[in-house]
Formats: sequence, structure tokens, C-alpha cells
Amino acid sequence: MIDNVQNNEKTNEIIYLDNFNQAFEKTKEKLTEALKSTPKHIRPYTSHLAKAQGKLIRAASLLACAVNGEGRINEEAVYAAVGVELLHLATLVHDDVIDDAGTRRGISTLNKEYDRKTAVICGDYLLCLALEQGKNLKQRDIELNNYMTQICLGELRQHENNFNFMLSPIKYFRIIKGKTAALFEASFFAGAVLSDEDKKNYHIYSKMGNYLGMIFQLIDDCIDFEVDEGVAKKPVHSDFEQGVITMPMIHALSHDEKLAEMRKKGELNSKAIIDSVRRYGSIFYTKGIAKRYYNKALKYLSLIGISEEKANRIKAIFDKAYNGLTGKK
Amino acid sequence: MIDNVQNNEKTNEIIYLDNFNQAFEKTKEKLTEALKSTPKHIRPYTSHLAKAQGKLIRAASLLACAVNGEGRINEEAVYAAVGVELLHLATLVHDDVIDDAGTRRGISTLNKEYDRKTAVICGDYLLCLALEQGKNLKQRDIELNNYMTQICLGELRQHENNFNFMLSPIKYFRIIKGKTAALFEASFFAGAVLSDEDKKNYHIYSKMGNYLGMIFQLIDDCIDFEVDEGVAKKPVHSDFEQGVITMPMIHALSHDEKLAEMRKKGELNSKAIIDSVRRYGSIFYTKGIAKRYYNKALKYLSLIGISEEKANRIKAIFDKAYNGLTGKK
Repeated sequence: MIDNVQNNEKTNEIIYLDNFNQAFEKTKEKLTEALKSTPKHIRPYTSHLAKAQGKLIRAASLLACAVNGEGRINEEAVYAAVGVELLHLATLVHDDVIDDAGTRRGISTLNKEYDRKTAVICGDYLLCLALEQGKNLKQRDIELNNYMTQICLGELRQHENNFNFMLSPIKYFRIIKGKTAALFEASFFAGAVLSDEDKKNYHIYSKMGNYLGMIFQLIDDCIDFEVDEGVAKKPVHSDFEQGVITMPMIHALSHDEKLAEMRKKGELNSKAIIDSVRRYGSIFYTKGIAKRYYNKALKYLSLIGISEEKANRIKAIFDKAYNGLTGKK
Repeated sequence: MIDNVQNNEKTNEIIYLDNFNQAFEKTKEKLTEALKSTPKHIRPYTSHLAKAQGKLIRAASLLACAVNGEGRINEEAVYAAVGVELLHLATLVHDDVIDDAGTRRGISTLNKEYDRKTAVICGDYLLCLALEQGKNLKQRDIELNNYMTQICLGELRQHENNFNFMLSPIKYFRIIKGKTAALFEASFFAGAVLSDEDKKNYHIYSKMGNYLGMIFQLIDDCIDFEVDEGVAKKPVHSDFEQGVITMPMIHALSHDEKLAEMRKKGELNSKAIIDSVRRYGSIFYTKGIAKRYYNKALKYLSLIGISEEKANRIKAIFDKAYNGLTGKK
């Protein structure tokens, strides 16, 4: 702490990375480093998380937005990107405790392999690590923990509405705005600030981040209705089992009178929901909402006057999210 | 977030509170406010925590250290004090999840009353709330989340050594330095910084905070061996049951050959430990270590050249901790 006080006075020089790819590679490297230098007890698990890093779409979003007029990226953005990914991992670890999940990204979860205690503390630890990585952001008035609060609120709202098959679309959107979109919004906003973008454009970046999160969640809701776990790259039909109410379900329930009748009698079941979702085009409807967010985002993207290269890179992230990160439509 | 950017530019004026008592009252008020305005789902529980606030020894420490030369306290210290207490509460809520505890401060814990999910997210939420309260501290290079990381590390180390009846005193001290002393250290350090104390004294305050935490934990270890829950004001003999190795146990195990023999055979039990702790004066020994920390702290206190009133107030906190917060020797 004392050291911090003394050090901070000399660190005003900005270091730039040459381009997006260099920054993205460095982010992967730093994330791996962070996950491999955790306390002994949780290291095997966090080291595995380091290997199975996923697509790092939040980090990629932040870095894509952080590219400046000369195509370069402030090094601080790398730490911020590591921060948002660690924050995401922290929520995953706590999710696993909550759901008593057995596997994550192909290995046993901490709560299965060790116990709940290790998992709870590991989540707390990753959360702290995340906020530490993002600490330079504070000088720019970006509060990662505000976003984390929003995520918690979203999760709490979702949990309050677990198995609430009367959930309204408005409440649904409020939930996913917190639990999923907040961190994308943080990533876009932080990227914009670190790119020395004109302040008047900050809120446009935030909006775009929010839309990306919405798209991401809506498409994720659809993927849960895939036939095949291989295609979905995760367990399917698990939302209903866990009482998580998704947009396709809300749509089906509001259109299928027979399903609504089953709800009244407390007789809903997975098969009935799946059948109804297919029959009433609820996936098509949900993707349609995602598409509206996608179109609005691209409109915003055209407004901020950035280079074609930067705009294309951001658009590619929207494409990925809209296409379910699997490359298919 | 955008609002933050704009607001922060105008907040440079320092507001002072007249004295310690005013600041302490305001801290209680703000803490209550924070706990009563949590999301609906966890509000009944956090509202109860607000009523059963405990002694707020961490907040009192911070404020006692924050008193400036004129006896006044920078209002920021109130928010910092609320922050450290919320951080403490967050760790308690997660502890309850971990231990599957049924009651806390006289009411059902969140995990019993609702479920584990609510409790995990509530802890995360309180943690975020804590870090938000302390955000002004960042401008002073005080990183509450660094201390939180230390707490996590302490908890992880403790957990790694659960039921490790071979735990060495050195490892024991490393554990409690994290899990208990880190937050006291944060409180003292933050108080010193906010009091506009001479920078060269910062590390003395940190040390004193660390010693206070050590005393607090060592005495807490002793209280677990009290005969009567009424006297201890908490369940007794629970450390052994939960596999938490404490200083009196370490002392007894290193002096009582019969007990060490039982350890070898895996036959340790609560009664044998309690008997041995009494027979070998392990409580007396543990309190002796606490006393050494106490004496060192008072020596440091005499070095920093503060008013008698301020010094007495800080000393009173050490007295309270050493006397087990129960007013008895």
C-alpha cells in the first residue's frame, strides 16, 4: 500500500501497442499469467480456465473500441480487458456454486472437485483480481465494480423470477440488461474512453455495448432450444430445468393457449415448452428482436465517425454474437 | 457512468465533521441506509443486519485514526468506514454459505431462509457496494479491493489447512494476517491518509491496524474455549468442529504428548482438546501473545505525535479488542 502511494506519482507516460492483434495477444497472455499465479489451492482450476479461455468476446469488444485514430491501442486497455474477462470468470465460478454445476468448459467445477468453500472464495478472489486489473480505469472514472453491481442486481432479479412463468417481457429485459449486457456495456465504454474518443460519443459506445449484450443473451436463449448439444456447444434445454425464463418461452406462453392452460394447472414440462416454441416460431421471433438490436447498433456505429477498419472490427463482433458464436446463422 | 465523469470534476471541496462521535453516528446512519436500500429480494436480511450492527470496531478504528489536528474528520472517512463494514458483512454472508450456517446475529442466514443462490449473490452485491462506498479512497491510492484480496487469500489458506492439526505457528499467523488483520490494517491506513497525517507515519498506522487484527483474532480464538455461550456471545467450541486450527490448539498439541499421540492415531476430539487447552495453560499463552501485540501497538501509538484525546480513543479500541469486546479481562 505504501509502495502504491509512492509509485503512482511517476506513472503518467502512456504506452501504446501497435494494433488490435498485438493487444489481443497480450491480453490473452496477461490473462493466462493472472490465472496461473493464483493461490496454490485454486491454481489447478484457474490454470484450466486459462487454457479453456473461450472466445474472449468481452475483451475483444473492449480492445476493438479502444483502437485510436492511428490504429494503436493504449496499453491500459489490455489490463482493462483482462479485468472484464476475470470479472466474467468470477461470475461463472459463483454461478457454478449456485447451480451446483458439475462441469464447466469440460472439467469438473471447483465445487465438485474440491468443495463449495473453495469455489465461493475462488469467485471472490477472481472478483478482487478483476477489480485490481481495472484499477487504472478509475483514474478515468470507469468503475468496474458499478457494473459488477448491475450484474448482481440482474442475477438477483433473475433469481427472484425463477420459475415465474408469468414473467413479462419488460421484466425479462431488465434482468438481461443487468446479468449479461452490463459487462458488454462496460467493455465498450471503457474502450471508448481509452481510445481518446470524443466524450460526446461515450454514450453511443455504451449503447452499442448494451445492444451487443442483449443480442448475445437473446441468441443464447435460442441456442438452449437447439436439438443437439454438439451444435450448441453446451447442454441444451437446461434453462427450463433451472427455472430460467427466456424470451422464446415468454413468446410461446403468450401465444399457445394450451401451454398457458398447463401453466395455470402447474403442469408445464420441458417437452411441452419445446414443442410450443417450435410450433409458434418463438425462436424466429426472438432472433427478430436480436436483429432489431443488431440494426440499431450498426446505425450507431455509422454515426461515430471512426475508420472503416475499426468499424468493421466492431461489426464483426456483432456478427459473431448474432450468429451465436458458432459461425452459423 | 457518463454522469460520473461529469460530476467528478466538481467534487474537490472537503467537508468536515465536527468530531469523532458525529462521524461515528453518521457512519451508523449511512450503513443503515445502504443496508435498507438493497434489492427487494435480500432487503429483509440486510435490513436485519442493519439493526444488528455489532460493535463496528473496524469503522470505529478508521474514524479514530481519521481525526485531524483540529479534532475534526473529513467526511470521506464516513464513506470509507461504511465501506469497510460492508466488506466485513460481505465476508460474513459468504462465510455462512461456506459453513452452511443456520443463524447469524440471531436470525436465520440467507442460505437457510432463502437459498444458497441468494446468499452468494447477496455477498457479491455487498462486496460491490462496499467497493463503491470506498471509491473516493482510490483518489488517495487506498485500494479496498487489495485488502479484500488479502482476506480471500487468508480464507483460502485457512481452508487449505482445515483439520490440519500439524499447522505451524508461522502458517497460523500468515492465515490470520489475511483473514482478519488485513481489514483492520486497511481501516487504520485509510484513517491515517484521510486525517492528513504525515506520510512518513502511514506505515506505523498500518502496523497498528495489523496488530489490532492479530489481537482480535487471538482473543477470538480464546473465546471459543469459553464454558458458556452467554459469556462468549456466540457458539463455543465450534472452531474444532469446523476444522479451524487456532492458537490455543496449536499450543496444546505441541505440549501435550498424549494429545499429540491422539492426533497421530486420528482420534482427536473436542473434549480432549478442551481438557488439554485448560491443563496446559494454552489460553494464558495465547493471551500472552495478544498482550505482546498490544504492547507493541501502544509503543507505536506513542511515536506518532498525536493529541492525547486521539491517542486515548485509539488505545480504547485496543483495550476493547484485548478484553474480548465483552468488557471483561
